[in-house]
Amino acid sequence: MRELLEAVAAGDVSPAEAEAELAGYATGEAGRFDAARETRAGVPEAILADGKTPAEVADLAATAVETTGRAIVTRLDAEALATVRERLDAFEADDTYHERARVLVAHTDAFERPQLDATVGVVTAGTSDAEPAGEAAVLAREMGAQVERVDDVGVASIVRLLDQLPALRDLDVLIVAAGREGALPTVVAGLVDTPVIGLPVSAGYGHAGEGEAALDGMLQSCTALTAVNVDAGFTAGAQAALIARAVDAARAE
Amino acid sequence: MRELLEAVAAGDVSPAEAEAELAGYATGEAGRFDAARETRAGVPEAILADGKTPAEVADLAATAVETTGRAIVTRLDAEALATVRERLDAFEADDTYHERARVLVAHTDAFERPQLDATVGVVTAGTSDAEPAGEAAVLAREMGAQVERVDDVGVASIVRLLDQLPALRDLDVLIVAAGREGALPTVVAGLVDTPVIGLPVSAGYGHAGEGEAALDGMLQSCTALTAVNVDAGFTAGAQAALIARAVDAARAE
Amino acid sequence: MRELLEAVAAGDVSPAEAEAELAGYATGEAGRFDAARETRAGVPEAILADGKTPAEVADLAATAVETTGRAIVTRLDAEALATVRERLDAFEADDTYHERARVLVAHTDAFERPQLDATVGVVTAGTSDAEPAGEAAVLAREMGAQVERVDDVGVASIVRLLDQLPALRDLDVLIVAAGREGALPTVVAGLVDTPVIGLPVSAGYGHAGEGEAALDGMLQSCTALTAVNVDAGFTAGAQAALIARAVDAARAE
Amino acid sequence: MRELLEAVAAGDVSPAEAEAELAGYATGEAGRFDAARETRAGVPEAILADGKTPAEVADLAATAVETTGRAIVTRLDAEALATVRERLDAFEADDTYHERARVLVAHTDAFERPQLDATVGVVTAGTSDAEPAGEAAVLAREMGAQVERVDDVGVASIVRLLDQLPALRDLDVLIVAAGREGALPTVVAGLVDTPVIGLPVSAGYGHAGEGEAALDGMLQSCTALTAVNVDAGFTAGAQAALIARAVDAARAE
Amino acid sequence: MRELLEAVAAGDVSPAEAEAELAGYATGEAGRFDAARETRAGVPEAILADGKTPAEVADLAATAVETTGRAIVTRLDAEALATVRERLDAFEADDTYHERARVLVAHTDAFERPQLDATVGVVTAGTSDAEPAGEAAVLAREMGAQVERVDDVGVASIVRLLDQLPALRDLDVLIVAAGREGALPTVVAGLVDTPVIGLPVSAGYGHAGEGEAALDGMLQSCTALTAVNVDAGFTAGAQAALIARAVDAARAE
Amino acid sequence: MRELLEAVAAGDVSPAEAEAELAGYATGEAGRFDAARETRAGVPEAILADGKTPAEVADLAATAVETTGRAIVTRLDAEALATVRERLDAFEADDTYHERARVLVAHTDAFERPQLDATVGVVTAGTSDAEPAGEAAVLAREMGAQVERVDDVGVASIVRLLDQLPALRDLDVLIVAAGREGALPTVVAGLVDTPVIGLPVSAGYGHAGEGEAALDGMLQSCTALTAVNVDAGFTAGAQAALIARAVDAARAE
Amino acid sequence: MRELLEAVAAGDVSPAEAEAELAGYATGEAGRFDAARETRAGVPEAILADGKTPAEVADLAATAVETTGRAIVTRLDAEALATVRERLDAFEADDTYHERARVLVAHTDAFERPQLDATVGVVTAGTSDAEPAGEAAVLAREMGAQVERVDDVGVASIVRLLDQLPALRDLDVLIVAAGREGALPTVVAGLVDTPVIGLPVSAGYGHAGEGEAALDGMLQSCTALTAVNVDAGFTAGAQAALIARAVDAARAE
Amino acid sequence: MRELLEAVAAGDVSPAEAEAELAGYATGEAGRFDAARETRAGVPEAILADGKTPAEVADLAATAVETTGRAIVTRLDAEALATVRERLDAFEADDTYHERARVLVAHTDAFERPQLDATVGVVTAGTSDAEPAGEAAVLAREMGAQVERVDDVGVASIVRLLDQLPALRDLDVLIVAAGREGALPTVVAGLVDTPVIGLPVSAGYGHAGEGEAALDGMLQSCTALTAVNVDAGFTAGAQAALIARAVDAARAE
Repeated sequence: MRELLEAVAAGDVSPAEAEAELAGYATGEAGRFDAARETRAGVPEAILADGKTPAEVADLAATAVETTGRAIVTRLDAEALATVRERLDAFEADDTYHERARVLVAHTDAFERPQLDATVGVVTAGTSDAEPAGEAAVLAREMGAQVERVDDVGVASIVRLLDQLPALRDLDVLIVAAGREGALPTVVAGLVDTPVIGLPVSAGYGHAGEGEAALDGMLQSCTALTAVNVDAGFTAGAQAALIARAVDAARAE
Repeated sequence: MRELLEAVAAGDVSPAEAEAELAGYATGEAGRFDAARETRAGVPEAILADGKTPAEVADLAATAVETTGRAIVTRLDAEALATVRERLDAFEADDTYHERARVLVAHTDAFERPQLDATVGVVTAGTSDAEPAGEAAVLAREMGAQVERVDDVGVASIVRLLDQLPALRDLDVLIVAAGREGALPTVVAGLVDTPVIGLPVSAGYGHAGEGEAALDGMLQSCTALTAVNVDAGFTAGAQAALIARAVDAARAE
Repeated sequence: MRELLEAVAAGDVSPAEAEAELAGYATGEAGRFDAARETRAGVPEAILADGKTPAEVADLAATAVETTGRAIVTRLDAEALATVRERLDAFEADDTYHERARVLVAHTDAFERPQLDATVGVVTAGTSDAEPAGEAAVLAREMGAQVERVDDVGVASIVRLLDQLPALRDLDVLIVAAGREGALPTVVAGLVDTPVIGLPVSAGYGHAGEGEAALDGMLQSCTALTAVNVDAGFTAGAQAALIARAVDAARAE
Repeated sequence: MRELLEAVAAGDVSPAEAEAELAGYATGEAGRFDAARETRAGVPEAILADGKTPAEVADLAATAVETTGRAIVTRLDAEALATVRERLDAFEADDTYHERARVLVAHTDAFERPQLDATVGVVTAGTSDAEPAGEAAVLAREMGAQVERVDDVGVASIVRLLDQLPALRDLDVLIVAAGREGALPTVVAGLVDTPVIGLPVSAGYGHAGEGEAALDGMLQSCTALTAVNVDAGFTAGAQAALIARAVDAARAE
Repeated sequence: MRELLEAVAAGDVSPAEAEAELAGYATGEAGRFDAARETRAGVPEAILADGKTPAEVADLAATAVETTGRAIVTRLDAEALATVRERLDAFEADDTYHERARVLVAHTDAFERPQLDATVGVVTAGTSDAEPAGEAAVLAREMGAQVERVDDVGVASIVRLLDQLPALRDLDVLIVAAGREGALPTVVAGLVDTPVIGLPVSAGYGHAGEGEAALDGMLQSCTALTAVNVDAGFTAGAQAALIARAVDAARAE
Repeated sequence: MRELLEAVAAGDVSPAEAEAELAGYATGEAGRFDAARETRAGVPEAILADGKTPAEVADLAATAVETTGRAIVTRLDAEALATVRERLDAFEADDTYHERARVLVAHTDAFERPQLDATVGVVTAGTSDAEPAGEAAVLAREMGAQVERVDDVGVASIVRLLDQLPALRDLDVLIVAAGREGALPTVVAGLVDTPVIGLPVSAGYGHAGEGEAALDGMLQSCTALTAVNVDAGFTAGAQAALIARAVDAARAE
Repeated sequence: MRELLEAVAAGDVSPAEAEAELAGYATGEAGRFDAARETRAGVPEAILADGKTPAEVADLAATAVETTGRAIVTRLDAEALATVRERLDAFEADDTYHERARVLVAHTDAFERPQLDATVGVVTAGTSDAEPAGEAAVLAREMGAQVERVDDVGVASIVRLLDQLPALRDLDVLIVAAGREGALPTVVAGLVDTPVIGLPVSAGYGHAGEGEAALDGMLQSCTALTAVNVDAGFTAGAQAALIARAVDAARAE
Repeated sequence: MRELLEAVAAGDVSPAEAEAELAGYATGEAGRFDAARETRAGVPEAILADGKTPAEVADLAATAVETTGRAIVTRLDAEALATVRERLDAFEADDTYHERARVLVAHTDAFERPQLDATVGVVTAGTSDAEPAGEAAVLAREMGAQVERVDDVGVASIVRLLDQLPALRDLDVLIVAAGREGALPTVVAGLVDTPVIGLPVSAGYGHAGEGEAALDGMLQSCTALTAVNVDAGFTAGAQAALIARAVDAARAE
C-alpha cells in the first residue's frame, strides 16, 4: 500500500485509481464506481445511461476509464453521447458507438481485452430485435468471447431456422432474442444441446405487448431455457460470456 | 300459431316446445333456454355447468331436450352428472358422457345431427390439453363437422409436428390447443394455409401460468391466428364448425 | 435451378428474386424477407413499421416489391412514408397510402391481386375504430376478398345495428371492431350464423382502457367468437381472408 | 338520557340498546355494531359473514337484533347459519334464509320494515347471476323498495331483452347483473332513461374471468352506467334503494 | 313523414335533421350521430375528442348542433378546439369552452336547456380533481340539474369535510371525486343518506397510481357507493343527472 | 471460546447453543436458525409455519428455545401446533397459543422478556382484522413494548374513531389495520402526530380484494404513512417495537 | 378571536392568516391549504406540483408562505418554478431549489425551522436514486431532523455497504432507497437494529420495472421493514422525521 | 432398420422401443413420449404429473422406462405415486421417491447414468425453498453433474452467506433458490464469477406473493443473473447441467 500511496504522491497514479485499488471502488461526483467488479464477479461494471443526467454518465465513464482502462455505457442517446465523448477526450481513449445497440465502448491504449477460446451465438427472430441483441453481443465481446450472429430466423417461417441449425449446433452457448410471442428460444432449445438464454424483446403491441408475452413464454417454456428481463441484452451477454469463460478455462486445464 | 296452440291443447306439443317455437326461448325453473340459438346463430345452445346448482343444470338440460331434441352440458362433474341423468330419464334420450372432456351429450330418438362435408382438425401439444381439446371436438361434431385429432405434437420436439404436417394440410380448419408457452399454434399457422384457431390451455405454473402465457403468445403471434379464451374449447369448436358450415354450404352451391 | 441461375447471370432476374425462389426468403440489409409466406401460409408477408428504423422499413419494402411484386407496410408514419416511397421509386410501382389506416400498399405493373368469390364484412362500433378496421380491410382486399364496410353501429344505440342486420347476414365472414366495453362483436355474433372475429380497439381510458376491457369481453363472450389482439387489424383481416379463400375454393369445386 | 339510564336500571332496556342509543354503536364481544347506520347513512348495517368466525357472526347478529330489531347477514354458509339461528333463538325473531342468495334476515315482532313508493328492478343475464342479484333484491326490499325481477335476458340472444323492455321502462331504478363479458347493463342503459347500476358477477373462466371482464366492461361502458364491485349485491341493492328513497320522498312532498 | 320530406325539399329542414327525426341518428362524414339518445336514454350524446382527428370531431359537432341544437365535446385540446369552432361558425351557436374541464358546449339560439328541480353536489378532495369534476358538473348542468360545488375537503384533514357536512346533506345526489387513496367518497357516504357516486381521479404516482388505488378503494368501500371509471366525469355527471331527473319527476307528480 | 467448548464437553451447554454463540446461528435438521437476530437487528427470529412441514416447524422451534430461550411461531394451524408442542415438551417451556392470531409463543423459565417504557397502539377497522392485528400485538409485546388495542373504528362510521382519538394521541407509535378500502390508516395519520404504520388486511372480495385495495390505498395515502404487506402483522409489530425501543432508549438517556 | 379580527381590520394580519388561525385552513383560488397540518399531524403541508397548473401551484405556495411562513413544493419542473418564484416575490422569502430532488423550499425571515436532537440516515443504492432520496432528505430537514447521506452502497457489490455499516449503526432511523431489484433495504435491515423505511425507486425497465420489483421486494422482505410507494420520498422523509421527533421528545423528557 | 424390425418380430425389442428408435418418440395411450430428447437437446424427457390423470402419468412413465431405461416424474403426489409404482413393477426398475422434492426416478438395471467432471451448486435461502431446490438437484444429478447443496444462507442474516462463500467459489455453476424478496441470487452473483441461475420460490404471501416478488427481483437484478419461472426446479437443474456438460466436454478436450 505504501508503494501505491507514494505513486499517488508522485502523480503517477490518480487518487481514483488508488482508491479503486485499495477499496475496490472509486468515488466520483456521480457515485461510487465498482472498479473491482470484473475481478470479483467476472463482469465489467457498465454504466446504464437511463435515469442519470448526461453529466452523471460522463463522470462515471471518466472514472471507469481512469480506474479500469475501459468504459461501457449502455442505453446511451445521441444527446448524452456528446457529453460523454467530450469528457473522455482527456483520456485519449479510442471509442466506438454501436448506434443500433446504443452502446458506447471506450478503451485506453493500455487496455487489453480478454480473449476466450469459446463462442457465443446471438440469434434473433427479426429486425426489431436488433437493439438488445446488439447490446448482448457487445458485452460478450468485451468479456472476450467470440460472437456469431444468426439473424431473422423467427418461427413464423421455420425453414429459415432449420437452414441455420448446423451452424447453431457448433456454438458453445446461445442467446436467442425474440419479441411478440417469443417462441424462437423454445424451438431452438428443443433442437440443440447447448445452454440457451432467452432474451425477450419489447416488440409487440396490445395485450401483453412490450415484451411481456415473450418473457411469459420463455418462463413457461417446456425446454431447459433460462431467461433475462425484457430488453436486458447486457445481462444475457454477461451470463453467456461467463459460461464461455468457464468453457475456456476448462479447455485450458 | 293457431295450429300450434291446438297441438298444445291436445297435449301433442308441450308448453315449453310451443314457447320455444313462438318466442325463440323456453322458460324453465332455472332460466330461459335459448332454443332458437342454432337457427339464429348457427350454434346449439349449451349448458355450462360451472356456477349453477345440479338442479338448475338438470332443469336446463331437460328443457333443452324437450325443445330441441338435444342437450349439451359442459364442465360437468360426476356429481352433477347423476342429477342430470336422472332428470333426463323421462325423455328416453341416448346420452354419452365424454369423461376426459367433461361434456354430456343427449339426443332424443327423433334428433338428427347435421352432417357437413368439411373437416375440423383438433391438434394438441401434449397430454395436458386433453380436456379443452375434447370439448372442442365434441362441439364441432355436434354441429356436424368431421373431426380429425392430431395429438402430442408440441414444439419442444418439432419433428413430431413435421411428421404430421401433410395430414394437417388436408383439413378445412384447425383448432390448435397448447398450454405452457403456447407456441404450437404459431408454428402450425406458419406452415399451413387453412384458418387456425388457437386454444390456450390452463397448464403451466408460476408466473403467467394457468394458460396466461399461452393466451398472450397466441394474441402476439406473428401469424394470422385468432384465439379464444383459456380452456374455451366450446368456443373454439363452435367457431371452427361455423367455418366448416360455410365451406360445406359453398361446396353445396 | 440452372435456368434460374442463368437468368440471374443474364441480369433478367435479380439475386434477391432468385434467393426467394430457391430458399423461400430473400436476405436484405434489414433482414430476411419471407417471400414464400403467401404460397406457404396463404398470407402475404407484411412489414410492421413499428420498432424498425425508416431505412430498415424501406429496405424490406424494396425486397418485398422485388421478390413478390408487392409491398404492404403497416403502422407507417408520415415521416417513414417518405423514406419508403423514395426507395420504391426504382421499381416504378403504383402505391396507395391509406392515411387513416396507416397502411401503404405498392404493386408493380406485373402484379395481379387474387380475386375471391367471397365477401368479408368489416363492422365498427364508432369513429375511433377507424384505424385497425381500415388495416383489416386493406389486408383482406390484398388477399383477394370482397370487402363490405358497416360503420358506427355500437351497442349504446342498438337500433343502428338492427337496421344493418339484413346486410350483415349476407356476408361470408365478419370482422367486428370495438373499443371501450367492446360488446358489439358479442351482440352481432348472437344474431348471425356466419363466423365472427372480434377486433378490440385501443379506445377507452382509465382502468382496463387501451382496449383491455374490449379484449377481455371478447374472450369472455357467451357467443362463438374468436378474437385477435388489441388493434391487430392485420391479423383479423388475414384470418377473415383465409376463411374467404376456403369458401371461394369450395365454391369453385 | 336520565330516562334511558333508569330504563336500563329497571331492566326495560338492555345495556346494548342504551349504548346504541347514546353512542350510535353497541360494543359486543365480536366488535362494535354500527346501530345508527340506517339513521345516519340510510342503509341498515349488515353483517358480512366472510372472514369472521361463526361465533363472531352470531354475536354481531344478536347485537343487531337487540339494538335495531333486525339482523341482515350476507354470504352466510349453512354451517354458520346454524350457529346464528341458535343464538337468535333468545330474541323470538322471525327469520328467513334466502338460500341461493346466502342471506339471512331476522326481524323481531316489533320491527317495521319501511315501505317506499318506488320500485327497483333487478335484472339478470343468466342463471349464474342468481346469488348476487338475490342479495341485491333482499337488501332493496329490507330498505323498503318494491322489487321487480327480470331474469335471463342476456345479450347473446337479444330478443329476450327486447321482449322485456316495456316492463323495464316502468321502473324507477335498475340493477343489471351480468358475468362473462358483462354487456347487458350497457345495452339496457342505452335503451332506458332510468338510472342503471351495473352489478358484475364472478361467472366466467380463463383470462379476465371471475367477473373481471364484466367489471371492466361496465367501467368502460359508453353509457351513463355506474358500477359496483364484482358480486357486490349488497352495495348495488343499497344504492338502488337510496335512489328509491329519494324518489319516494319527492313523491311525498 | 310526408310533411318532413316536404320541409326538406323546401330547404326548411336539413337532410341531417330529417334523418335524425326518422332514423334516430344522422350520418355525417365522421360517423353516425346518435341524435335520439337524449329522448331514448335520457343522456345527450356527447363527442369524446380523444382518438378522433380534429376534422372528425368538428364534423360530429356540426351534426350535433344541426340535429339537436347543441354540441357537447369532451377532452378537447386547444388545438382541436380551433377546428371545431371554425366549423360551428356556420350555425351561429353560442359556445363556452370550460378550460380546466376541457369541455366545449355550444347551443343554438333555439335550444332550451332542461331545468330540473333537483340538485347535484360535486365534491372534490383536492385541486388535482378539477378536470373530471368539472366535466361532471358541466354534464349535469346540461341535463338540467342544479349543481353545487364543494371543493378541497380531502380526508387527510377531515375537519374541512366536517365543516361542509350540513351543506352536503341538503343535496339530492352527490358525486365525490378523489385521486390517490380515494377515501373521501367512502367517508362522505358514511355520513349522508343521499346516493353517492364515486369518481376516481388519475392523480397519484407509483404503484396503483393513475387512479387505480382510488378506483379500487371505491369498489371495495364498506358503504353503499357506486363508482365510475377513472376520470369518467361524463358518466358520473350523467348518472347523477338521471337521478336528479327521477327526483324532479317525482316532485312534479 | 475455550470456556464455551469446555462447557459443551461437560454437557452444560448444548452443541446448538454453542454454535449459536460462536457463529450467530444454529444448524438443525430443518435449517439454520438465526439465533443472533435479536442482538444484531433488534427483532427476535420467528418461525413462519406456512410452507414448512410440521416436523420442520417443530425442529426449528426446538432450536429456537434451546438457543434463545424462546420460540415464536406464526401462521400455525391447529394440526402443526400439536407436533410443535410435543417437540417442545423436552424443554419444559411455558407456551401460549394465540388462537385468533395463530401465533405460538414459548418461553423457558430462564427467559426474561425485555420491558420497554413505550407503548404501541394496535388499531383495527373491524372484526375481520383480528388475525394480523393480533400477530402484530404479540410480536410487539415479545419485543418488550406496552400494547394498547383500539378495535372497530372503521371509517364507514367515523364517530367511532373520533371517540377514541384522545386515547390514540397518547401512544408512541400506531399500527392501524384495515381491509376492504383500507382508509382508516390515512384518516388516523391525518389526525395524530405519532408515526403510523398501515397494516392492510386480506378482507374484501372481487376486484382488488384480498387486501390489494387496502395496500394500494395505504401506498397512495396523502399522509406520512408507511405500509407493510397484506396481513404482515409480524413486520408491522416488529417495526413498531423498534420505534418503541428507540423511544425507550432515548427516555433512558 | 376578537383580537384576531381587529388585527385583520387593521391590516396587520391578512384574511388568509386569520382564516388559517380560525379554521385550520386557508381558502385560496386554487384550493384550501391545510395550514394546521404541522400542528395537528406533525408534518408540514407540502404542494405536489404534478397534476396542477403552474398558476395553481403558485397560488397554493403563496398561501403557504402567507399562513405558515414556509412553502415546500415537490416535483416542480423548471417551467413551473419560474411562475412560483414570481408569485413569491411579494413575500420577500428566501428560497432554495433542490434541482436533482426537484423540490423548492421558501422561508420568510420570521420562519424558524425546528431543530431535533435526532438523526435520519438517507441511504441510496446508486446514482439513479438521487431524486426521491433528495426529496426525503429535504423533508426530514424541514421537519428539524439532522440528516446524514450514505450513497451508492447497492448490494451488487456488498463491500461498499459493509464499509459504511458502523456509520449506519449510529443513526436513529434509516431511509434506504433502491430501484431495480430493491434488495438494499432488506440487507441493511438485517444488519442494524434501528427502524428502516424502504423507499423503492422507479429505476429499472422491462417486467416489473418502474420500481414495481423494488416495491414488491420491500413488501416481501424477511426483515422488519416498512415501505412507502415508489418514488415517495416525501412520505419516507416525513415518517422518518416523525420517528426522529419522538426520539427527540423522549431525549428531552 | 430391417434389423430392428426383425428384432421386434422376434420379440427382443418392443414396438415402443422400435418406434422410439425410428421416429424419436414412442406413442403410448397417454401421448407421444419424446424418447430422443436427451440425445437431441441434452435433457432427459421428464413427466410433469400436474394436469395429468394418475393413469396417464403411469402410462407415460412406463413408456419412458421401456424406451430409455429411465423415468423421471416431477410434482408427483403420494396418490399418483402408488399408481405409477404399480405400473412400473413390470420393468423391475429401481426407483427412488424424493419426498420433499416430489420427484420419482426409476432406472432399469441396464441404465447407466452419465458422469460429468463438473459440479453444480444448489443454494437455498431458507427451509421453504426445499421443494424446487430438491427438484433441481435431482435433475442435475440425473444428467450426470456432481451436486453440492448449501442451504439456509438467506440475506436477512448475511453472515451465513459470507461463511459459505469460499465453498461457493469452487463450483462450476450455481442455482440459487429464494422466495419472498428473492435477494439471495443477486447478492451471490455479485460475489462470485461463476454463472448463477436464479430460482424463485413460491414462498411469501400478500402482494407479489407466491414467488412473484422473487421472480421480479431476479429479472431486475443488477448482476449477470438469468432466471427460470417460479418453482421451476426442473428447468434450473437442466440448464445448470447443460453448462456442466459443456465444461466437462471442454475439460475432456
